[in-house]
Amino acid sequence: MLDWIYQPAAAADEQAWQYARQRQQELTKPPGSLGQLEQVAMRLAALQSTRRPQIQRIQVSLFAADHGIAAEGVSAFPQAVTSQMLQNFLDGGAAASVLSRFVYARLEIIDTGVANPIQDSRLLSASAGLGTANFLQQPAMSEKQLAQCLNTGRQAAARAQSGDLFIGGEMGIANTTAATAVACALLNCGASQLTGAGTGISTDTLEHKQRIIQQALDGYRLDSDEPLTILKTLGGFEIAALTGAYIGAAQSGLPVLVDGFICTVSALAAIRINPAIKPWLFFSHCSDERGHRHLLQTLDVQPLLNLNLRLGEASGALTAVPLMQMACQLHNNMATFNQAGVSQ
Amino acid sequence: MLDWIYQPAAAADEQAWQYARQRQQELTKPPGSLGQLEQVAMRLAALQSTRRPQIQRIQVSLFAADHGIAAEGVSAFPQAVTSQMLQNFLDGGAAASVLSRFVYARLEIIDTGVANPIQDSRLLSASAGLGTANFLQQPAMSEKQLAQCLNTGRQAAARAQSGDLFIGGEMGIANTTAATAVACALLNCGASQLTGAGTGISTDTLEHKQRIIQQALDGYRLDSDEPLTILKTLGGFEIAALTGAYIGAAQSGLPVLVDGFICTVSALAAIRINPAIKPWLFFSHCSDERGHRHLLQTLDVQPLLNLNLRLGEASGALTAVPLMQMACQLHNNMATFNQAGVSQ
Repeated sequence: MLDWIYQPAAAADEQAWQYARQRQQELTKPPGSLGQLEQVAMRLAALQSTRRPQIQRIQVSLFAADHGIAAEGVSAFPQAVTSQMLQNFLDGGAAASVLSRFVYARLEIIDTGVANPIQDSRLLSASAGLGTANFLQQPAMSEKQLAQCLNTGRQAAARAQSGDLFIGGEMGIANTTAATAVACALLNCGASQLTGAGTGISTDTLEHKQRIIQQALDGYRLDSDEPLTILKTLGGFEIAALTGAYIGAAQSGLPVLVDGFICTVSALAAIRINPAIKPWLFFSHCSDERGHRHLLQTLDVQPLLNLNLRLGEASGALTAVPLMQMACQLHNNMATFNQAGVSQ
Repeated sequence: MLDWIYQPAAAADEQAWQYARQRQQELTKPPGSLGQLEQVAMRLAALQSTRRPQIQRIQVSLFAADHGIAAEGVSAFPQAVTSQMLQNFLDGGAAASVLSRFVYARLEIIDTGVANPIQDSRLLSASAGLGTANFLQQPAMSEKQLAQCLNTGRQAAARAQSGDLFIGGEMGIANTTAATAVACALLNCGASQLTGAGTGISTDTLEHKQRIIQQALDGYRLDSDEPLTILKTLGGFEIAALTGAYIGAAQSGLPVLVDGFICTVSALAAIRINPAIKPWLFFSHCSDERGHRHLLQTLDVQPLLNLNLRLGEASGALTAVPLMQMACQLHNNMATFNQAGVSQ
């Protein structure tokens, strides 16, 4: 049932990469002077197997879910907010809605398991339950739920397959707690190293959140080499869906732009499951959430933005989209030294 | 003749700022979770004196000039490239051209004093001479040339006055040498602290460039409190024009987005001349040029991007434009907690 997650990722086009690298040397600018924008253009050319990389058809899949661990009082917001925000996404008032319109992305909202389901024909339903279990008492989800959520993500990536870029996003009260627990288990580190303020909790609540996570880590004593068991025990439905989406996108040859802390945890789990997918992931930003920088460093990736964002909902990834588009425009449309008659 | 540079900057609208700050608290997101994007929106609202800040009408004024100091062999490119690139800007093949089209900015190219003038009806001419003098032998320009260049910048800002944003850019072989010398004199520091690789010179040339700058600093012994004399002695026509443009824009109530190292040096000079202009300046990015980070820290400003750019030509500022636009879109178009029925 889960065999697909180990299938190889699509191959990048080495020849397209060579061509892109050569072209970057010929454009009317000092070599390397467009910094990370050059790297983005060259990588995209190789991944899209083209001489003219582009980011035009963008799909944003926003996975929402609730978390049993919310009962421990680890968030600044009540659980009801998950479903209220779901409605806000659909009605176009959330940050993700506004930014999706700005970059002309197709935004789809997927219920992967909220506690208070809403009725709206625009919502995609793939609920694995009315929220996860409280992982302080029992594993967050069953094997079957995990498989269902991974598959939900894979299907979202499949819907984006004819496009240029896949973006995943998440919404779920208490999901930084679940994501932090997953990250700690995957990296074999203590809760004190990675736990952050999420939506903006007080110092007292932060200490409480950290204790909850550490207690779970101590209780389960998970093996850091078993990412699926870690996701099942400590994760969330949307976290697993993102993991499945990233693996599926890379397998079908679709570049991915990873959002903030929670998405980076899902990406880390995905890379642990299937290391070959890593070249398909672009990392959009380093957020204000405490553990994010450490995760990005561990993954040895360089994000495009550092704007102290900490909203989630794909908002950071969407903010970075124009940078990728400009990288393509420059690559495709600047004159070469020869064309412009400029001395090299 | 230069009295205008000391005239007060336009006042920001305190009430618009208060309204914007209040609105940011009411939008459907954890307070502060949009980080620097919130800061940009609030500042723009105050500067544009509006409840709906916007960045739609953008003018890019690109000032080109040559530098006598190029004779000392401080650049990786021959002086002829300045005019060749001028033609490339006009023909639409340069990075600045491509990015201006992407953000629908009006790009104007101004000859403030290139060594090899070109004939093209699309070029604005405001030449103060066929390049500056070699500042190792004599002051780079005369009082009269300085006044002319400052005024050229002011006039460019005046042409942008009905718009939402002014961006200045520069082109001029050897202009990081002039800009570094100006920065060292303004900050009273040695050449070794700020000299960088510009378009990408070898280590040997970098040491040579540093020695040239230090020799000039030692020879003139300029007073760091005399920015006009510093600009006149070590600066460039385009560097002075940018200084005039920033002052003029702030005086007429037009927000400015500052580009890279050279533009930041011009901004520093402008702020030294007229400190009240500072709130009108947004800083787009921290470049790869060695002294840039130090300058930004000295100015106590936070740039929007860190992409290892080092091209100049307004390219970094143009790259940051969509971020400012998205900050406005989020501010103007997100739903409030009340509107969306989301618990706060």
